[in-house]
Amino acid sequence: MAPQLDSYFKTVDDLSDAFIERLRKAVAIPSISAEDDRRPDVIRMGKFLASELTALGAEVELRELGKQPHKEHLDLPPVVVARYGNDSKKRTILVYGHYDVQPAGIEDGWATEPFTLTVDDKGRMYGRGSTDDKGPVLGWLNSIEAHKKAGIDYPVNLLMCFEGMEEYGSEGLDDFIKEEAKKYFKDADAVCISDNYWLGTEKPCLTYGLRGCNYYSIEISGPGQDLHSGVFGGTAQEPMTDLVNVMNTLVNKDGKIQIKGIDELVAPLTDDEKALYGDIAFTMDNLYESLGSTTGIYPDKERTLMGRWRYPSLSLHGIEGAYSAPGAKTVIPAKVIGKFSIRTVPDMEIDAVNELVYKHVKDAFAAIGSKNKLNVFCQHAGKWWVASPKHWNFTAAGKAVEHVWGVKPDLTREGGSIPVTLTFEQATGKNVLLLPMGSSTDAAHSINEKLDKKNYIEGIKLLGAYLHYVAEEPITS
Amino acid sequence: MAPQLDSYFKTVDDLSDAFIERLRKAVAIPSISAEDDRRPDVIRMGKFLASELTALGAEVELRELGKQPHKEHLDLPPVVVARYGNDSKKRTILVYGHYDVQPAGIEDGWATEPFTLTVDDKGRMYGRGSTDDKGPVLGWLNSIEAHKKAGIDYPVNLLMCFEGMEEYGSEGLDDFIKEEAKKYFKDADAVCISDNYWLGTEKPCLTYGLRGCNYYSIEISGPGQDLHSGVFGGTAQEPMTDLVNVMNTLVNKDGKIQIKGIDELVAPLTDDEKALYGDIAFTMDNLYESLGSTTGIYPDKERTLMGRWRYPSLSLHGIEGAYSAPGAKTVIPAKVIGKFSIRTVPDMEIDAVNELVYKHVKDAFAAIGSKNKLNVFCQHAGKWWVASPKHWNFTAAGKAVEHVWGVKPDLTREGGSIPVTLTFEQATGKNVLLLPMGSSTDAAHSINEKLDKKNYIEGIKLLGAYLHYVAEEPITS
Repeated sequence: MAPQLDSYFKTVDDLSDAFIERLRKAVAIPSISAEDDRRPDVIRMGKFLASELTALGAEVELRELGKQPHKEHLDLPPVVVARYGNDSKKRTILVYGHYDVQPAGIEDGWATEPFTLTVDDKGRMYGRGSTDDKGPVLGWLNSIEAHKKAGIDYPVNLLMCFEGMEEYGSEGLDDFIKEEAKKYFKDADAVCISDNYWLGTEKPCLTYGLRGCNYYSIEISGPGQDLHSGVFGGTAQEPMTDLVNVMNTLVNKDGKIQIKGIDELVAPLTDDEKALYGDIAFTMDNLYESLGSTTGIYPDKERTLMGRWRYPSLSLHGIEGAYSAPGAKTVIPAKVIGKFSIRTVPDMEIDAVNELVYKHVKDAFAAIGSKNKLNVFCQHAGKWWVASPKHWNFTAAGKAVEHVWGVKPDLTREGGSIPVTLTFEQATGKNVLLLPMGSSTDAAHSINEKLDKKNYIEGIKLLGAYLHYVAEEPITS
Repeated sequence: MAPQLDSYFKTVDDLSDAFIERLRKAVAIPSISAEDDRRPDVIRMGKFLASELTALGAEVELRELGKQPHKEHLDLPPVVVARYGNDSKKRTILVYGHYDVQPAGIEDGWATEPFTLTVDDKGRMYGRGSTDDKGPVLGWLNSIEAHKKAGIDYPVNLLMCFEGMEEYGSEGLDDFIKEEAKKYFKDADAVCISDNYWLGTEKPCLTYGLRGCNYYSIEISGPGQDLHSGVFGGTAQEPMTDLVNVMNTLVNKDGKIQIKGIDELVAPLTDDEKALYGDIAFTMDNLYESLGSTTGIYPDKERTLMGRWRYPSLSLHGIEGAYSAPGAKTVIPAKVIGKFSIRTVPDMEIDAVNELVYKHVKDAFAAIGSKNKLNVFCQHAGKWWVASPKHWNFTAAGKAVEHVWGVKPDLTREGGSIPVTLTFEQATGKNVLLLPMGSSTDAAHSINEKLDKKNYIEGIKLLGAYLHYVAEEPITS
């Protein structure tokens, strides 16, 4: 039986100006985690959230994470954990979000002041953090307020975990989640994260998979210091020549990884899975628009989506130590470090991929027969994540989307990684759902970041509706 | 008949403290041409030279070159031109040097203040510009003073051309030289430049050849903006993959250029030339010491010297537009620019090399079959230079070296380029000689630049002796 949500929805609409005002206050706090000078603003933003939550009747704690690694003069911003409701007859949903933002300055090319929420006549609300991730975080708070104002019982116990370092590697969070999984988060029946985006602009989606990422460095060195190519060109073996040779063996123009054994690690495509791609709301024009060109690898959307979601990819990012400025410099770099990463998918284990990469790179370098020295290593690695979209957590979210937006959501995966997703799954052992609020045009991390007013307000309805459907779902897993 | 030089040499020795004092004053003026804020110091240095020359009885002019291109708020420093002696029965020698210096700061790692000449107990005189090129420039002034003090007639008419922008591309100088070749410099019978170094530390040399340099950019672009490899990896053709592929086709690990047709442009090695390399004071240990490694291409000194001097080389310098910082960034660069240069030798003409390079790069890119776009162009090109070491200009210098240092000089070429050399040759039509004062360990352009007191004082004797031998040489060409 569909829950009765009309009164909740109406209250959300009635409070929409107040909700936008709450977002305006949050955007006005430049909580940039990557800039040391802004650390007090990040902490201020955490306290703002705590204060709003307390006013709404939640139990709130600011959990300190200690000093920032490698920057011992800086305190990490606190994790804001909160509980709203403590009824053992209700399900308990753990939600995650982050209250820090990417750097932004008007001088980067913003059309409006990045820390002043500016709403245009099409309802686009511009401001740093509007969609990533202050809008979604406030969505949970707003859902509480609308329930209270409407006089409707909140359908679940809500556990909240909002961090302030997401845009700087979520320093300290993994250990915190593992530590609290059996403590503060012990009642959680499922997890919901609203920190990603629709695939396009019209159709909502639920996201059940992410690729992992293994990031590598290939160091090749020879001379004791950088050399002048006039003096030494033609007399010494050059590390840059060797590096370009090795990097050229990794991948071909169509993104096909040339490292032996990688293909065998990839889970085969089943007919069932193959059938899913046809219905996804995505076109090649969507790809070309976001690329800004027509330089796609595949002519069809199905293979393109598979290339993004379910097959590995390898990108060459650049070379450290070589000449990278505009103009001309006749240097022979003494030590160059090639950077590349592999996006991983089921069933590629981190260590197995590392072994294949190391062997390939060492063999490729040995084949050159150079006197220079090689070192290859993995800078960091994060595993892929795939959840079961048949879990009640997804079923409930799917019904909520249909109720609010009038369409069944696409079931999507993403090519990038949100490492905290896997951490929550592994630490709690519960199903994790990614339930996005914003759309593909929101420009998170870019200039002119925005959240459409419609996505914000309907998104608040969606988060509340999701919790009502969660409360009704039978226990299946 | 060897000229009588004893009295001149003794006077140089007697004045050595005064000559070091003159160098101290010059080093104390931080005439860094690359730093806008230092432009007044560069101009001050030019005026210091002019004033010293005037005091010595030379006719001096400060020639303005106008505003600096692309930096119109800055005046270029003047060219100091001077004439000492105007006797039509004497030969006239045109000498060139520069009074500007490379940037330097104690914070770069200098052991002493870079603009305070500091002489250690081994007679090493540390200071920016000591060897490059204030020491040699003052050498000419000192030779005049010592002749005056010794009461000896100066053996030639000396024309001087000292510029203040050498370390910043000699802005404006080429046009000036071409303009004055038939005016201020019209009497010149030969040209002498003291702005390079001995091949080692013990044996003087005369330099009769330089390689040229063609510097190229390969631009490959596709997407409209940089992409996130999580979102786009595996769906778009990446410019970086294509660029690494093309760059890998240019040269092999032993520096052998892979561009078809280049070999055919190189003048064949004759038996006569081949025989010259055996006697050069150079060992593989010299190479390994300067490399800071044993990653040389060839096991023998002869082929190594040929690799540096008489064969072309190709170095990959780096990539602009890709990720080049330390750490990890998962970017797919939208536009990358590979930089490489070819050191050219006789008989490689600039245009012929360009044509071969363009064809090779275009063919290599076409072979990939990528949808990205290619653009290849030559950023700048300077031709190689080879003079006849049998000209009286070289014969005189060789005798002077033997007189001062007691050994026949090595006849060397250099792998790098000193573009003004070719300009003087082409503009005046006269023989140009490179007559170095400093040694290979002087660290020009590096921290702790120095000039050995012995090289300075004996160098002053050498410059004077050279002019005396010039005066005695029969007219042969």
